[in-house]
Amino acid sequence: MTKIAQTNAHVIDAVAHRWSPRAFTDKSVKAVDLKSILEAARWAASAYNEQPWRYIVATRDNEAEFNKLLGVLVEANQAWAKGAQVLMLSLAKKTYTYNGSNNRHAWHDVGMADAQLSLQASALGIATHWMAGFDGEKARDVYNIPDEFEPVAALAIGYEGDPETLPEGYRKAEVAPRERKTHDQLFFTGSFGQPTKL
Amino acid sequence: MTKIAQTNAHVIDAVAHRWSPRAFTDKSVKAVDLKSILEAARWAASAYNEQPWRYIVATRDNEAEFNKLLGVLVEANQAWAKGAQVLMLSLAKKTYTYNGSNNRHAWHDVGMADAQLSLQASALGIATHWMAGFDGEKARDVYNIPDEFEPVAALAIGYEGDPETLPEGYRKAEVAPRERKTHDQLFFTGSFGQPTKL
Repeated sequence: MTKIAQTNAHVIDAVAHRWSPRAFTDKSVKAVDLKSILEAARWAASAYNEQPWRYIVATRDNEAEFNKLLGVLVEANQAWAKGAQVLMLSLAKKTYTYNGSNNRHAWHDVGMADAQLSLQASALGIATHWMAGFDGEKARDVYNIPDEFEPVAALAIGYEGDPETLPEGYRKAEVAPRERKTHDQLFFTGSFGQPTKL
Repeated sequence: MTKIAQTNAHVIDAVAHRWSPRAFTDKSVKAVDLKSILEAARWAASAYNEQPWRYIVATRDNEAEFNKLLGVLVEANQAWAKGAQVLMLSLAKKTYTYNGSNNRHAWHDVGMADAQLSLQASALGIATHWMAGFDGEKARDVYNIPDEFEPVAALAIGYEGDPETLPEGYRKAEVAPRERKTHDQLFFTGSFGQPTKL
């Protein structure tokens, strides 16, 4: 099953095909592809080129590490993410290295890296599902995350699987169409809320 | 001039070719391309599918609106961004619409939309330069931005131009190679700071 975005304008395949499944096959993600996926994050833009992003990576072939990261997720996410091939956690450095001041764009810039990572995966036919649901303090403890870094988002990676393999409560969302706010609700000119004319 | 990323692993062209120039040509960005660029942002992932992103858009063909957005930037950015063809400002909704609670991933998810926007532009040969340097309170005032939204990042869009057209202080950065932290500084397994083996 693919859920290609019903777009109003042409977008690159990596965008049109990217969505966040919960069902994954047991096909492993090759190291060469995982390297590409990480490399795309590395080349994201950031304020003052701070590159505030860091990633904890756990692959299924290292069962102890995979289970360690799985255990950081909330139970509702563990229920399906246990079927992924790779789990990750993105982290943000809270301060600018060049002067120690607060970096208010840290999470934004980690978001830019996370999106580049997902689009690179999408281009390789590999699915990514970002999660807000995890225990940040447990992650800090388990991975010795220093105070100046914050856990931002967890990630499941793998090849799209059969929705029927999911716990029953997740099957409906898996096959539902992808929905977004309309162009007019998002893009404004002149004043907030005033749709841009294009 | 193009500054293709010196990558350690293969990445899609949209990632390899994306960088943030300050010099732009006077070639305008077609409406059809600008629609694609916005559409790519629209299809980003977000926590609970909140889609916290909104955008103020100003194109050069509407001089008053272009100058209004230009006036929100700090002077150091106005000096070069005045040569762009399109200016934008991304905004984040601070709360989840479904229950009114704080959305701690709002800026992260706006970052994901901003990155999709930039990669779509890159795929079309169009350059984007995100800026942290702007006056958020002025933006709030000028665009009547409601309290529940925050200005996040400003953006200049256009076709890469000749570095010699820039004010002198910006020319060196324009032709410098793109630099990033190493793979081992960013991707960890087992514990923070312990490079992942791939």
